Amino acid sequence: MLAEIKRVVIGSPLETARQSHERLNKRTALAVFSSDAMSSSAYATEEILRHLALAGLVGTAAFHYAMPIALLIGLLLVIVAFSYRQTIAAYPNGGGSYIVASDNLGRLPGLVAGAALLIDYVLTVAVSISAGVFALTSLFQDLTPYRVEIALLAITVITLANLRGVRESGAVFSVPTYLFLLSMLSMIGYGLLRWLLGDTIVITPPAGPVAGPGEVELVPGFHAEPVGLFLLMSSFASGCAALTSVEAISNGVPAFKKPEARNARITLVWMAGLLLTLFIGITWLSGFGAVPSNEESVVSQIGRGVFGNGSLLHGVLQFATAGILFVAANTAYADFPRLASLIARDRYLPRQFATLGDRLVFSNGIVLLAIFAGALMVIFDARTTNLIPLYAVGVFLSFTLSQSGMIVHWFRLRTRGWRQSALINGIGACTTFVVMWVIIVSKFLEGAWMVVLLIPLLVVLFISIHQHYVHAARQLSLEGLEPPPPLRNTVIVPISTLHRGTINALRYAESIAPGNVTAVHVSLDEEQTAKIRAKWAKWGGDTPLVVLHSPYRSLVRPLLRYLDEVQRRWDNDVITVVLPEFIPAKWWHHLLHNQTAFLLKSALLFRKNLIVASVPYQLER
Amino acid sequence: MLAEIKRVVIGSPLETARQSHERLNKRTALAVFSSDAMSSSAYATEEILRHLALAGLVGTAAFHYAMPIALLIGLLLVIVAFSYRQTIAAYPNGGGSYIVASDNLGRLPGLVAGAALLIDYVLTVAVSISAGVFALTSLFQDLTPYRVEIALLAITVITLANLRGVRESGAVFSVPTYLFLLSMLSMIGYGLLRWLLGDTIVITPPAGPVAGPGEVELVPGFHAEPVGLFLLMSSFASGCAALTSVEAISNGVPAFKKPEARNARITLVWMAGLLLTLFIGITWLSGFGAVPSNEESVVSQIGRGVFGNGSLLHGVLQFATAGILFVAANTAYADFPRLASLIARDRYLPRQFATLGDRLVFSNGIVLLAIFAGALMVIFDARTTNLIPLYAVGVFLSFTLSQSGMIVHWFRLRTRGWRQSALINGIGACTTFVVMWVIIVSKFLEGAWMVVLLIPLLVVLFISIHQHYVHAARQLSLEGLEPPPPLRNTVIVPISTLHRGTINALRYAESIAPGNVTAVHVSLDEEQTAKIRAKWAKWGGDTPLVVLHSPYRSLVRPLLRYLDEVQRRWDNDVITVVLPEFIPAKWWHHLLHNQTAFLLKSALLFRKNLIVASVPYQLER
Repeated sequence: MLAEIKRVVIGSPLETARQSHERLNKRTALAVFSSDAMSSSAYATEEILRHLALAGLVGTAAFHYAMPIALLIGLLLVIVAFSYRQTIAAYPNGGGSYIVASDNLGRLPGLVAGAALLIDYVLTVAVSISAGVFALTSLFQDLTPYRVEIALLAITVITLANLRGVRESGAVFSVPTYLFLLSMLSMIGYGLLRWLLGDTIVITPPAGPVAGPGEVELVPGFHAEPVGLFLLMSSFASGCAALTSVEAISNGVPAFKKPEARNARITLVWMAGLLLTLFIGITWLSGFGAVPSNEESVVSQIGRGVFGNGSLLHGVLQFATAGILFVAANTAYADFPRLASLIARDRYLPRQFATLGDRLVFSNGIVLLAIFAGALMVIFDARTTNLIPLYAVGVFLSFTLSQSGMIVHWFRLRTRGWRQSALINGIGACTTFVVMWVIIVSKFLEGAWMVVLLIPLLVVLFISIHQHYVHAARQLSLEGLEPPPPLRNTVIVPISTLHRGTINALRYAESIAPGNVTAVHVSLDEEQTAKIRAKWAKWGGDTPLVVLHSPYRSLVRPLLRYLDEVQRRWDNDVITVVLPEFIPAKWWHHLLHNQTAFLLKSALLFRKNLIVASVPYQLER
Repeated sequence: MLAEIKRVVIGSPLETARQSHERLNKRTALAVFSSDAMSSSAYATEEILRHLALAGLVGTAAFHYAMPIALLIGLLLVIVAFSYRQTIAAYPNGGGSYIVASDNLGRLPGLVAGAALLIDYVLTVAVSISAGVFALTSLFQDLTPYRVEIALLAITVITLANLRGVRESGAVFSVPTYLFLLSMLSMIGYGLLRWLLGDTIVITPPAGPVAGPGEVELVPGFHAEPVGLFLLMSSFASGCAALTSVEAISNGVPAFKKPEARNARITLVWMAGLLLTLFIGITWLSGFGAVPSNEESVVSQIGRGVFGNGSLLHGVLQFATAGILFVAANTAYADFPRLASLIARDRYLPRQFATLGDRLVFSNGIVLLAIFAGALMVIFDARTTNLIPLYAVGVFLSFTLSQSGMIVHWFRLRTRGWRQSALINGIGACTTFVVMWVIIVSKFLEGAWMVVLLIPLLVVLFISIHQHYVHAARQLSLEGLEPPPPLRNTVIVPISTLHRGTINALRYAESIAPGNVTAVHVSLDEEQTAKIRAKWAKWGGDTPLVVLHSPYRSLVRPLLRYLDEVQRRWDNDVITVVLPEFIPAKWWHHLLHNQTAFLLKSALLFRKNLIVASVPYQLER
């Protein structure tokens, strides 16, 4: 029945031969690989404004700080994008941070990058879904109290779709991505036009209190922080969430149409350009009076201001934003299981993550990702702003490791123009390294400590898993093993009463070790024992019958003691315990029988040189 | 570790040889067998008064009805006691209703009596514990809200004591029983003395509202019922709870010192006399102004009135009452498992109930009783008055069946004086039959319907269990079985990779069926399969290797299909599947391996003519 439910929900198994890879053109590839990066423009500006609000800076006052910070992040984006252009050239088969760091820096940095990325993918799901839900609740504010439920529903739907194995069809990605791009660019363009024509853009924030980072409500008269270095670092660090997933294209080079590397590089430039436009454009528009709030997102406020209150275009914008964010979450459902399978293939994660499920997807990884992301939703109340402090640490750690790996790569290969490439990656590595520390320091107490703690723990886990596999392989290796001599087998048949089932078991025992069988009876009841002795003459044949006394009425203990004795006497040999087991016709009949066979099996489980064979005897009714 | 906890809580196992039976003198026997019956005087009067209160009758007005009802119940008690004197004479080895009814009326009436008694014992625990808790909360009224918790604690303590196997030592029973008798008789005697000396006894009920049956609170101005036949029947039926467990002595005749029957009969008369005195005495004293209440029991109110408010003797009375009631619950802990074991020995209940546990007690019966009684506590809020409507039906049903059985007994044996004995049992049978119907009719809607429904359901369960055992025995019988010919065994060894564990398994397979072994490899990965084929030349010996293709990457399905085919081809034979299974050194290593052996075992479980043998290979680290 469970199998039937699984079939309906997940679908019938797919043949291995049906696994195939679609090649993507640039337009589709932009949608598939960039939805994640571009969708971060939906929340990055808001996070900067939430930090500035802590110092009492809102509206125009905030804008004077927000714009320079956004431009700095924009510069960072350009540096990172150029760095990854190098990776595309060097790793045409896909250069994820795990591979680049493992290849060039060694096993440990590779594992650190792997751990950081796995955490990151979980956070990508959590952040994107909660931001998507916020886009919807900004439009329908009555739904705000149900955001955790909506988020969990979204995770469930995406998880089931991925377990079914949605083909990475262009349409699923293209429609929401291009709708989002269109709405956002229209909003920015129309805003710019209105501004150039001298029209006044008025953004009216919701009536509720101004919100700081982590849902904090800044009621009038709160104690404002000074505008110091720490506050600015913190705003900058939050805005760096805009850079997450910039590396996606460099991971996916083999999916592009030929010439893969060239097409991938062009797409990367387009992606960076578009993301830059969206991020700077939204930050600029926010200066017309958007104020961070827990009821309505900054993007929604801008949309209302530019397109007009209650306009259709504002509604389209919100749906498109939610759509691209859910698609962004979906990309992590491909990335997490794929990375987990790579790590498992290198034997740093349980091998179960490396096996394809019924529907040609890595089901175990998908389920694990869903569980973690769902837990984050509940713990962090499905609020993007609560999750942001955890998000960027792993991203910039893997940027740094990946770029450092590229420097080593160029120094090793010394291909034409390697100095220039190494310089670009060097700048990238240094910049991302510095930014990583800015994020760690400024976000440590807000939540980054969890990630800083978790990454080494994960690495330790990877290494101990690996050690187990190495030890197991060494112990199981056939190297140096001599073809073994034939084996002598002593068979023991425990018997409680003599019936067709036990006769069957005795007959089986004689067939597998003729002349080497002993029947053992644990005597709990003198009468019963006398009966068996009497019948033994007729039914026992030449098999000896040993009667064990059990002063404490235990069946298992005297038998175990006897087995120990036999094992001591016949060293170097194996013992087979043949258990007569009868199989009732109906499941509830099991309750009516002493579960002796089951008890014995559990007691004999995992004993050295001891084999248990159950001989079934089927009851017909 | 679980075994260690069990040893501390329950104690070490006891040897079978230590099972012994203590013979009881009359004084101790009165305590052991009568605590249950006599303790019912603690709540019987109150139940009568609760029903009369429904008609607005309290104080003197209630007394005019309560006293005649109590006297009628007293007459009933005399009739039942005399009837059971006959049973003692006829069944010196113990004549419980189950045995008497089975012996004389046949299997079905015996099972009905058995079902009624099992239900009764569960209710005895529930009623006695809740009445005992009420005795305590009457003294310490702050504890009233915690009565369910206190009741569950009491059940837990009594259950653990019984699982340890408390010897039925005289002291445990004698102290509370005689303390109770002494307190109660002092109260009645002192009350009588004060009344004879013309002293006014004033009982002041608690300030709260008058309570009807089932905790109903009768606030002033409630709609009073008319004093009709139904109300009087209902009061009488509730008071009949006083007669529960009168049959206990007749069950326990073999425990008496010689001459057993004579001593038992004398004890029975004493018990009936004492119970009569207590019940009538309390009912008489209640006439001085006791009013049923949910805060304080009627007995406690009388105790306060007679001994004085806040007197030490009142405190002793309440503790003694709680004590005898807990002891009464304890007797059901001996009766229920003993009856269940008798029924299980006749194969109408699972045989697990017939086996003595580690501590020489029927542990399964004890645990089952505790679970049911605990559930009743929670469902009925640990209130005696909620449980009473369920209680007396089963008691009087088993009385009727037992007495009817005795009539048949006398007619069959026709020993000296059989006519007179038959007449006495005849009167007993008729009376208890009529009373049973009075109880069923008047209590049906209050809760008796549950018992009326449950008894036939239990009987059906008994019969279907019996049928299974009969069918199983017939199918397993050796009658007509010819000594079977030797058996041909085909061995199949599923192999995923070649390592020391699989080599071990192959060697074992060759030893149990030389020349009859096939290795089977399910190919999930071409590379892996090629490796195995290459190694097979060196390690496979003469064993053929079959490679199965698995287009859907399932390991189990192709193997099952192959086994089906082999079974079809080699009919009349058995197949042994030898599974190489390696045993990691640490439990968490299990998580790091595909649970292939486990999956295969589950899939192969309970297949006809198929034997599974796991060959362990121990990893050292």
